[in-house]
Formats: sequence, structure tokens, C-alpha cells
Amino acid sequence: MKKLVLPVLLGWLVLGMVFPGTAGAETGHRMTVRDVVNAIIRYSVGDRELPVNDRLIAGSYDTEVTGIVVTFMATVDVIRKAAELGANLIITHEPTFYTGGDATDWLENDPVYLEKKKLIESHGMAIWRYHDYMHMAQPDGIYAGLWKEIGWDQYLVSTDNPWIYEIPQTTLADLARFFKEKLSVGVVRIVGNPDMKVSRVGILVGGGSLGLGREEMPMQVMQQHNLDAVVCGEIYEWTLPAYVNDATMLGLNRGIIVLGHERTEEWGMKHMVAWLQPLVGDISVTFISAEEPFLYLTDGGILKGGQDVH
Amino acid sequence: MKKLVLPVLLGWLVLGMVFPGTAGAETGHRMTVRDVVNAIIRYSVGDRELPVNDRLIAGSYDTEVTGIVVTFMATVDVIRKAAELGANLIITHEPTFYTGGDATDWLENDPVYLEKKKLIESHGMAIWRYHDYMHMAQPDGIYAGLWKEIGWDQYLVSTDNPWIYEIPQTTLADLARFFKEKLSVGVVRIVGNPDMKVSRVGILVGGGSLGLGREEMPMQVMQQHNLDAVVCGEIYEWTLPAYVNDATMLGLNRGIIVLGHERTEEWGMKHMVAWLQPLVGDISVTFISAEEPFLYLTDGGILKGGQDVH
Repeated sequence: MKKLVLPVLLGWLVLGMVFPGTAGAETGHRMTVRDVVNAIIRYSVGDRELPVNDRLIAGSYDTEVTGIVVTFMATVDVIRKAAELGANLIITHEPTFYTGGDATDWLENDPVYLEKKKLIESHGMAIWRYHDYMHMAQPDGIYAGLWKEIGWDQYLVSTDNPWIYEIPQTTLADLARFFKEKLSVGVVRIVGNPDMKVSRVGILVGGGSLGLGREEMPMQVMQQHNLDAVVCGEIYEWTLPAYVNDATMLGLNRGIIVLGHERTEEWGMKHMVAWLQPLVGDISVTFISAEEPFLYLTDGGILKGGQDVH
Repeated sequence: MKKLVLPVLLGWLVLGMVFPGTAGAETGHRMTVRDVVNAIIRYSVGDRELPVNDRLIAGSYDTEVTGIVVTFMATVDVIRKAAELGANLIITHEPTFYTGGDATDWLENDPVYLEKKKLIESHGMAIWRYHDYMHMAQPDGIYAGLWKEIGWDQYLVSTDNPWIYEIPQTTLADLARFFKEKLSVGVVRIVGNPDMKVSRVGILVGGGSLGLGREEMPMQVMQQHNLDAVVCGEIYEWTLPAYVNDATMLGLNRGIIVLGHERTEEWGMKHMVAWLQPLVGDISVTFISAEEPFLYLTDGGILKGGQDVH
């Protein structure tokens, strides 16, 4: 991990010199939404100009920030909790309005949208999407948070690539149990022989396991890096699960563990508090979990995060 | 249902007159792969020329057919079982080689692909992808099979649209239990209040619930048709689940039930036997389940289709 942390620390020092006014605390300046966003962008990628979709989804860049909430997704409950905390800026990793681009033209007469918009406006809440910049950071901010949660930075095969790990040998079933417990996943989906041995593991968080526009990508990663197993966020049934299912039927040593989008990515936002807080001085920064969206109907009943709710 | 069945029956009669040689049985002719494929296409869409991706994935159109297997996906196990039955033609709804287009250039050195290819060739198996034509049939062949399995053709709101149903009022939890049992799903994912009342239901099978290229589509269907709940195949977490999650938090009556791709579409292939058999005379037609690809790790252990396997 040292190789990864060092450039970030150096970057910090440089930023502190070049943009001394950014961290409102030191100067006593009040910070606007724009100030906070700029501080986050500079922390993530420095002054590189990059093509991103990250943008202000609600509110104004000129609003003075009273408190910040960071979250995987600005759900209605997250917005309510943020307002209760006196925060008026939510930094969200994923969309607020149900499509990748947060377009709202199709929602103009939709009651869910209209009620959520009213809620946002009634609290004067600004919402900024922090997705692309976070993944472009070195290291990727989502993986960096996941490492803090599961301690796997020590197993990274190369610091050039946050996907590939070599871990002490275990089984697919035990690896699935590890992730279920560590990341509090209600039900984990597995493809492969539960008893298969696993030491080389890939992790493709969030939508990355869909292939980022190339359906074959996750399988190529598996093949090129000689992985026994891949831990996935979202999945298309006809790609990696089908591939690993065939591999298993052929007696080849392949498995996947599917944890879902929110459960693989929320950790980047949770551990964002530690690096964002010093950038914004005495403005309170709070992580709020968006929580796994699914309930699970098993033969034993309906569970949420492993708890019986029905 | 009568309105839907009648045109199909009429189509049948017409086909029988125009293509009397298609149904090998009556004439005693042997059938090639091409003959069987042509019979399926004509049954599905008549003589309409349509842009489709359906094509021969393995084998030759000129091979004489000894037996036919129909399946959701030509997995390694399905191919082995087909060979045991003496079949040499598999009609598969979904890809054989792990991407939507069944491209194999990226797989040339992949051991899973090479082993599967060897298996296919060793049995002289032909595999034909029957996807687009099946969904283009009137009614859509996948939905028609699902109706046979769950008896919901009686609840169709309009025969113009196989997605929208009005059912006797139930709850989201009971509806999820109904599908879990009827379609033998290991674990069903739910978003919404389990106690919410449900009477207007959408069903978007397979990848349809991903939006068919428009992420907003499933939510627009829900809104435009005033649906309480949508039963889904595959899902992107940031679209319909996020929308329904927010709706639930706002006290609006919305829910989804996620069953997976294979579990929602396999029924079209199962019930294909009944209409394909008369088209191919004494050639045996057998449905083989591709089976749900996932095992489920719950707090109670690892389950497959609700059965403890580990």
C-alpha cells in the first residue's frame, strides 16, 4: 500500500501549497458548494482536465455549506437524514434520478420524481454527483475505501491495478462468507463449486462487473490474470455467470461471488469522510449508508441484511 | 387468450397449406437443421423478413436432424444431456459463448471456450440461437410459455401488450411467494413494502427489465400503466430498484420482484415443445432446463433452488 499512499500524500502537500484557501478551516473562510466540489476534484485528480459526467444534480454552486453528507446514493431517506443533521450538501456516488445521466426530462410528470424534488428543495439541499473523478483518482477512491473495510491492500498483485489480488488460499464458500459478513450482505449469489480452492481473486465493484461497455471484459480479466474467482457488483446473467457455470461443469477452477452494486461501492463513500474532513475544516462531514435496496425472500422468510423483517 | 390464439392457429393452417413439406412427418422426408430452423421461423413470424441476430452458432445447416433439444441456454451440461438423448440440434434462447452476439474472436485461447467447442464438435452438435424471432412472434413466445406456467393470460389487460396484468388483489410478499414457488426460484429479491397491496402488475422478462437500451423504460412502463409492481428478470441497481426504493420511502405504492433472467424466460422454451413437435414429425423434441445459475449464501447456508447444497 505504501506505493499507493505516497503519491496521494505528496499530492496533498502540493495542493496545500498551491491552493491554500481551499481548506476553509485554516483561513476561517466560509465554503460554498463550489469550494467543496473544487477541493474534492483537486484531491482526486489534481488540476487535470478530464471528461466527466460528475455534476451538480440539485441546488446551487453558490450556496454556503452548513454540513456535508457523503453517501452511495442520495435516496429519500438519506436526504431526510442529511436535513436532520443540518447538512445542505450531499455528495453522492450514484444517480439521484434513476438513470446513469440523471436526466429528468422523462420524469416531469412522475410522482416519485416530483415528491423527491420537493423534498430536496424544501431543505435547500445541494446534491453533487461524485463518480467519475472518484474512479479516476490514484488509487481509485472506491477501491481505496473497500481496502480499508476488508484489509486487502496487502494482497494487491500490482499497484497499477486495483482489481487483482493474491490471497491466502481459501475456498469459494469461505470467501463468500467472508464478504457476506464483512460487508453485511443479505444474501450472496455464487456461481461455481463452493469447495473450489481460491487464491487469485479479482474484484470488480459496482457496474464494473458488467464490463464497462464490453461484455467480455470481466471474462478477459479472469483469463488474462489467471483468476480463480471474481467478486462482482452487478452482473448480466448471460456473461460471467454463464462462463463460470460452464467452466465449473468442465471441471475448471472458476467461481464468482456477486455482492451487488451498493454493497461493493459504499465503502469508498464511508471512508471518504477521513480525507474530506480536513479539506473542509469545521464543516461537519457525515457518512450515511444508502443501505442495500433489496429484501430477500428465502424459504425461511423475508430478510433484510440478514434480519427477518416479515 | 382466445384473441391471441386464433391468429396463431390461422397462421398454422396457412403455413400448412403454403409449406406442406415443412412438417417432415406427413411426407416422411428427413429434415435438416435448415428445415427445422425454417419451420420455427415460419411458425414465429411467417414470411416477414426481419432484422435478427438469430443464427447458427455451431454445426451445419445441412446436417440431418436426429433429435432436438430446446433450452434457455446451451450450457455444457445441456449439451451433454442432449448428446445422451441422441439429439444433434439444440435450440437455445440465449448465447452459447457468453456475450449477446456470441462473438468468439476474444475467446480463441480461452480454455473454457476451447473445451466447450471440443465437446460440441465431438457430438456433431448443431446449435441455433432462437431469440429475436421468438420475441417477435405474436404473441411473444417467451411470454406465451410463461402464461402456460403461471396461468396469467387470463389477467392480461390488453392482448396488444404481454407486459401488463390486472390480478386479484394480493400483497407484494404473497406475490413474491407465488413466483418463488411457481417458477422454483432459490431466492427472490424484493424492493418495496412487503405488505403493500398489489393488483396492477407488469412482467418484464429476461433482459427486458434492463430497459432494452433505455434505462428509463421500465419506470416509464410502471408510471404509464399505473403499475403497483413489476416482476423483473435482470436489473440494474441504479434504475428501477432505486426508483421503487424512493417511492417506498415516500409512501407511494410501488414494488418490484426480481427473479432473474433464466427463471423468467425458460418457460418459453419449456412450452416450445408442444408447438415444435408437430412441425418436425417423429423427430424427438425434448426440453432441458439450463437451471438457475446461482447458488445462494444465506445465514442458513448455501442453497440451490431452495435446496441446501453445502
